[in-house]
Amino acid sequence: MEIKKKYVIIVAGGQGLRMGSEIPKQFKVIGNYPILMHTLNTFYQYDNNIHIILVLPHSHQEYWNQLCKDYNFHIKHTVVSGGNTRFASVYNGLNIISEPGLIAVHDGVRPFTSQQVIANAFKKAELFGAVIPVVEVIDSLREIMPDESSKSVPRQKFRAVQTPQVFRSDILKRAYTQTYNEWFTDDASVVESAGYSVHLISGNTENIKITTPQDLLLAEMFISHA
Amino acid sequence: MEIKKKYVIIVAGGQGLRMGSEIPKQFKVIGNYPILMHTLNTFYQYDNNIHIILVLPHSHQEYWNQLCKDYNFHIKHTVVSGGNTRFASVYNGLNIISEPGLIAVHDGVRPFTSQQVIANAFKKAELFGAVIPVVEVIDSLREIMPDESSKSVPRQKFRAVQTPQVFRSDILKRAYTQTYNEWFTDDASVVESAGYSVHLISGNTENIKITTPQDLLLAEMFISHA
Repeated sequence: MEIKKKYVIIVAGGQGLRMGSEIPKQFKVIGNYPILMHTLNTFYQYDNNIHIILVLPHSHQEYWNQLCKDYNFHIKHTVVSGGNTRFASVYNGLNIISEPGLIAVHDGVRPFTSQQVIANAFKKAELFGAVIPVVEVIDSLREIMPDESSKSVPRQKFRAVQTPQVFRSDILKRAYTQTYNEWFTDDASVVESAGYSVHLISGNTENIKITTPQDLLLAEMFISHA
Repeated sequence: MEIKKKYVIIVAGGQGLRMGSEIPKQFKVIGNYPILMHTLNTFYQYDNNIHIILVLPHSHQEYWNQLCKDYNFHIKHTVVSGGNTRFASVYNGLNIISEPGLIAVHDGVRPFTSQQVIANAFKKAELFGAVIPVVEVIDSLREIMPDESSKSVPRQKFRAVQTPQVFRSDILKRAYTQTYNEWFTDDASVVESAGYSVHLISGNTENIKITTPQDLLLAEMFISHA
């Protein structure tokens, strides 16, 4: 059986590192390491041979290189410069992939993906071509209508989408030949817009996207209880 | 100006207290008190004269009374027995309210509602009759279709709904004369189904519904950083 090459494009955008601005969440330290190192390590633990492509704003790269030295971080990865949108960043990451295989796209600020979810996503992507992890929606949901009124919608009919989203490289590359559209909020929406269907698998609820100060508190708790 | 009577129906359902089953989340201790006491206290802090109606499963009431003694908890409240559904529980709480006023309905496991949100919800309910706090949806969302396929939906068009949801008593009472429907996931959906429209206000993101072990960790962090 052919062993498919595996890639993960880790997208770590965020605001610049200007004087006085806050450190982007991916560089914050939890459990003795910057979040982004935990994230890279999660994929390295899954497969020591996975090709890790880290998309970082150009202005963050020197800082990241310094962090890698300071923390003695030696997991092999290729740094690519990010674009103005997530779409542009993933596009830049895709551009350096020439050999076919399976490509995961993952948020840099999601360090808590379970090994089981990663393994299942890659396995199912071989079968289905496009796989995303989802979890149930906890809160009641309302839809905002064009006239700014709103209506209750049944949350049972919705799922919250996580990453890693894993694709056959031919599918993802073809999808990313499309022109950017503001509704492209994740890679699944890009792939669907190109006419492919997406297979859902169960994500793990700990796989939070660390974006708020309260997420950071929760992340610290996860690490200290791990 | 007439001062409207204010009520809050705090719904604390959950599984029974059978031997060996886990303690329901509302009785778990964070920051030295059971969660439910924090929740009652939040409304007492807003208005010392608010009428607090606590809906508890019959099988939890003896345990709750004992907790109140153990923790020297003296905030005045009326305990009412819960029903098999949230709808039935709110209905039971409503039944003991005879004088008109403004009624908040609140989840027992949401102790972190800000004072500002409570005050704003009551204030706007006088004007609009039905008010609910909402926050932005963080994760990408997908809708599950009847054929079990799914499609990406723009999360910008959705809001996550919290409590307290505050209503004029005549509106809420009339809405609760309807027959129970499985789509009644919150009080706003009940009120809307009766033909009323609902006004949205901004909630506070810390106002989490404590349902999972990770929520409990986060709650402990909130308390210790408060």
